[in-house]
Amino acid sequence: MTTVTERLAWRYATKKFDATKSVPTEKLERIIEAIRLAPTSSGLQPFQLFVITNPDIRAKIRAVSWNQAQVTDSSHLLVFAAWDNITPERVHMMFDLTNDIRGFKNEGWESYRQQLLGIVAARGTEANYQAAARQAYIALGAALIAAAFEEVDATPMEGFDPAAVDEILNLKSKNLRSVVMLPLGYRAAEGDWLANLKKVRRSRENFVTEII
Amino acid sequence: MTTVTERLAWRYATKKFDATKSVPTEKLERIIEAIRLAPTSSGLQPFQLFVITNPDIRAKIRAVSWNQAQVTDSSHLLVFAAWDNITPERVHMMFDLTNDIRGFKNEGWESYRQQLLGIVAARGTEANYQAAARQAYIALGAALIAAAFEEVDATPMEGFDPAAVDEILNLKSKNLRSVVMLPLGYRAAEGDWLANLKKVRRSRENFVTEII
Repeated sequence: MTTVTERLAWRYATKKFDATKSVPTEKLERIIEAIRLAPTSSGLQPFQLFVITNPDIRAKIRAVSWNQAQVTDSSHLLVFAAWDNITPERVHMMFDLTNDIRGFKNEGWESYRQQLLGIVAARGTEANYQAAARQAYIALGAALIAAAFEEVDATPMEGFDPAAVDEILNLKSKNLRSVVMLPLGYRAAEGDWLANLKKVRRSRENFVTEII
Repeated sequence: MTTVTERLAWRYATKKFDATKSVPTEKLERIIEAIRLAPTSSGLQPFQLFVITNPDIRAKIRAVSWNQAQVTDSSHLLVFAAWDNITPERVHMMFDLTNDIRGFKNEGWESYRQQLLGIVAARGTEANYQAAARQAYIALGAALIAAAFEEVDATPMEGFDPAAVDEILNLKSKNLRSVVMLPLGYRAAEGDWLANLKKVRRSRENFVTEII
């Protein structure tokens, strides 16, 4: 049986993609669906997913990403862009959508809407952005695992200039900020220095504290 | 076949756990292993996992968590606690561990160690903590999916007073800060208002932007 831990052991941060190989649409869509279904705090889904194949845009992003080849050699470049603030409009959008989908108004839910509006107003723009950015990482975790189940390689990347990527993707006008990228594709047969090295993690003993 | 998206559709933020049911050790260990194997930026694993069964500690945490019953009624309470700073000692610990496990020193890796030491020094304590906290959310995503594959219910929770939880778990002395909690267990047969409501997500069209 294919398990989550077996798939996590299989994956690694691919350093060299085979630029001739493309991820089939049905696999890509299942990875996107895992991202879309990932849970987020208060169900806000406070980020937007960009799926970039355009070569010119990818070349521009590579230039502000320490020239890392995965940006252009991968099959698809995913960019997770978080809300730059959690505004009342955005809170209402998700709570209204919830009522629409469920087909009724729930008193507890409406009371929570008011509570949340108070929390985000008090917290302020920067802390709201930070909270939104964290949620994107839950979805990043889901994407990594979904990709590994599809035998698609993926490389989580924070090594880029977020302000420059925001400019390339015109994110400011959308009230978004780039947070993390995930190139998807297939590892090259040769030339990936990391491909055959052992995965390194702290031991369970060192990493986990039990309070019994 | 059981797929990641099918498992994500199955799971929900359980509001009422059956306090009489316990997650078997082998399932718990596979969920912990998924957390341990989750990737993190530069491989730092900048957080610690607490697995809490102790009833007194859980009662104290519940009292600073809006009295949410999942804290005490779940089988196991996981607390993700991020490094409060990314210090040179911590960077060296992970880079040295990497050399130990791989059995050799890699010049590129050593040069990256120096680069990373410069980055974290320039970034400062609070930004380093924020960066560490984000990594914990990748592992949270892995934990959620691993739990769903084990048919174990799980509720991501940010609704608690982090400073109070830090005090209860004595995290300051360990240079850690509580970030997010994940009670694990089994949904109660009755009394969970969310159990039978439709999952709400933005549509693919609304959530995804393709740049072709």
